[in-house]
Amino acid sequence: MPSAEQISQTVRSYLEALSKGSAEDAAGLYADDATVEDPVGGEVHIGHHAILGFYGNLAGSTLEPELVTLRALGREAAFLWRLVVRNGDSGGVRIEIISVMTFDEDGKIASMKAYWSKDDITPL
Amino acid sequence: MPSAEQISQTVRSYLEALSKGSAEDAAGLYADDATVEDPVGGEVHIGHHAILGFYGNLAGSTLEPELVTLRALGREAAFLWRLVVRNGDSGGVRIEIISVMTFDEDGKIASMKAYWSKDDITPL
Repeated sequence: MPSAEQISQTVRSYLEALSKGSAEDAAGLYADDATVEDPVGGEVHIGHHAILGFYGNLAGSTLEPELVTLRALGREAAFLWRLVVRNGDSGGVRIEIISVMTFDEDGKIASMKAYWSKDDITPL
Repeated sequence: MPSAEQISQTVRSYLEALSKGSAEDAAGLYADDATVEDPVGGEVHIGHHAILGFYGNLAGSTLEPELVTLRALGREAAFLWRLVVRNGDSGGVRIEIISVMTFDEDGKIASMKAYWSKDDITPL
């Protein structure tokens, strides 16, 4: 069972993968049969191929994630974070997100749900 | 299916029930077969009787909840909030909590998970 420290570190690695724009790094943190629901209520992406595709869609944007506050408990993490998304010269937006992850025995992300809607988006 | 507005209102009613110190009001927001895991990783309270008992344990403390930020999506809510707990003249603490709720068809709370640990407690 992963420790709270390992889980916290994986959350940080996740945000780092986003800031590097690396779909491979982000998807690599997930278990093979993991699920991603981002935003909650939208499509659920299941398995490595679908999750890699989901993060691949972010290519072309510059992402600046910032962790606000994190809880790591048992095999779960919940965190509030901000994501600044910049698209070339056309400005950008800041999204305030609450994310919840569960983890498997090996410390891989088993599921991720991101709670945000258009109400949480601020133009920059 | 409950609307985002209904779900947001139920979260507010929940915090109001805590501020009134009413275990009945808090437990009354839950479905009969609901589950409460507070904090995550601890005991899971299942069903009305157990949930009423859980909130009954808070009697004797003065609770001052404050909603920081709320997401209501589909049949779920995630919110960051602060809870000041005062025990007579012996001071008190502030706990910063991320809570996640799911809701049933009728808008009752089907499950609640509260993410916090001793690291999120500040003495006042």
